[in-house]
Amino acid sequence: MKKIITIGREFGSGGRELGRRLAEQLGIAYYDQEILTEIAKRTSLSEQYVHQIVEHRPITSYPIHIGRSFYPVPNPMLEQSQAIYAEQTRIIQELAAASDCVIVGRCADYILREQKPLRLFVYADEESKMARCRQRAPEQEQLTDRELRQKMRNVDKNRARYYEFYTGQSWGDKANYDLCVNTSNADIKQLTAIIARMFV
Amino acid sequence: MKKIITIGREFGSGGRELGRRLAEQLGIAYYDQEILTEIAKRTSLSEQYVHQIVEHRPITSYPIHIGRSFYPVPNPMLEQSQAIYAEQTRIIQELAAASDCVIVGRCADYILREQKPLRLFVYADEESKMARCRQRAPEQEQLTDRELRQKMRNVDKNRARYYEFYTGQSWGDKANYDLCVNTSNADIKQLTAIIARMFV
Repeated sequence: MKKIITIGREFGSGGRELGRRLAEQLGIAYYDQEILTEIAKRTSLSEQYVHQIVEHRPITSYPIHIGRSFYPVPNPMLEQSQAIYAEQTRIIQELAAASDCVIVGRCADYILREQKPLRLFVYADEESKMARCRQRAPEQEQLTDRELRQKMRNVDKNRARYYEFYTGQSWGDKANYDLCVNTSNADIKQLTAIIARMFV
Repeated sequence: MKKIITIGREFGSGGRELGRRLAEQLGIAYYDQEILTEIAKRTSLSEQYVHQIVEHRPITSYPIHIGRSFYPVPNPMLEQSQAIYAEQTRIIQELAAASDCVIVGRCADYILREQKPLRLFVYADEESKMARCRQRAPEQEQLTDRELRQKMRNVDKNRARYYEFYTGQSWGDKANYDLCVNTSNADIKQLTAIIARMFV
């Protein structure tokens, strides 16, 4: 059986760590930031710019009936977002075809739907996500609780909008995943071992 | 570690079968219908009547500002539902205190929250739930697809209302569970083996 695992995750839920550990434990490839690097390379855009694009909903024009002509108006921002999404789709398909792997984010669950990957979604309650953020990135200690909470919500809102724009599915809705894992109060290392046993 | 597993499930998702197999495999007790039988015994109500009560939202009075006095009006139906819920709470707490177990439905995840059970929610897409219903209960072949779909939705709607009334939580919302398992196209037997490994 081919092992293709996609991971959607709430910001601060530990989904990325779970993905990395899972790939290690199963001895398969792990792709996350690498996909952005590859997109940047192929499109000659900066990695930072690509990152900004894929974490936000594309900016579309106003609906055409609000004081606009019926002719499509060129929208360079939307076109660029779509070009990046097309590149992302190609890269993810190439990676999954090449070898077993864990792919974090990037609509991979949807892009690879024909290959029937195991689709995980990792989430947690707000309190434990905040604790995990502070632990993992001490520089966020400069943020007040309110600012950190706001930041977490914004990141997830943007992920949801991007996902929904390109997949037509609702981000984080359990119907779109095979397994949803709550990491509140959980130890990611132990959890990884448990999930890895699913593939034994 | 104590093994207390609660299972919430959509009608037709195979959650009950998963629970029964899981208890068998782990060699622990399994409670489902048994709880209703015990409530019936303790309250001297018929089992069928108890079943009807616990699968529906209690009938409450109209909000008092709609042409009603401010004095509480006796509501025998609501009082009976609450008496049954109180008995159910006691029984579930006794069972969980007595031994490791799997408990299906009955708000057990909420009732046992202090004991920190593993809270599973089992769900599936409508098509596979319909297929599972037809396979498991051939008498439902007399129902048209439309009727069966309606029946499935009604059962879940009533479960959700009952759960929400007594727990104040949203039934099936992944935030209330540790693990949500999608059984669409899954083999319950294999799935049980995988989940059982979590307790090895």
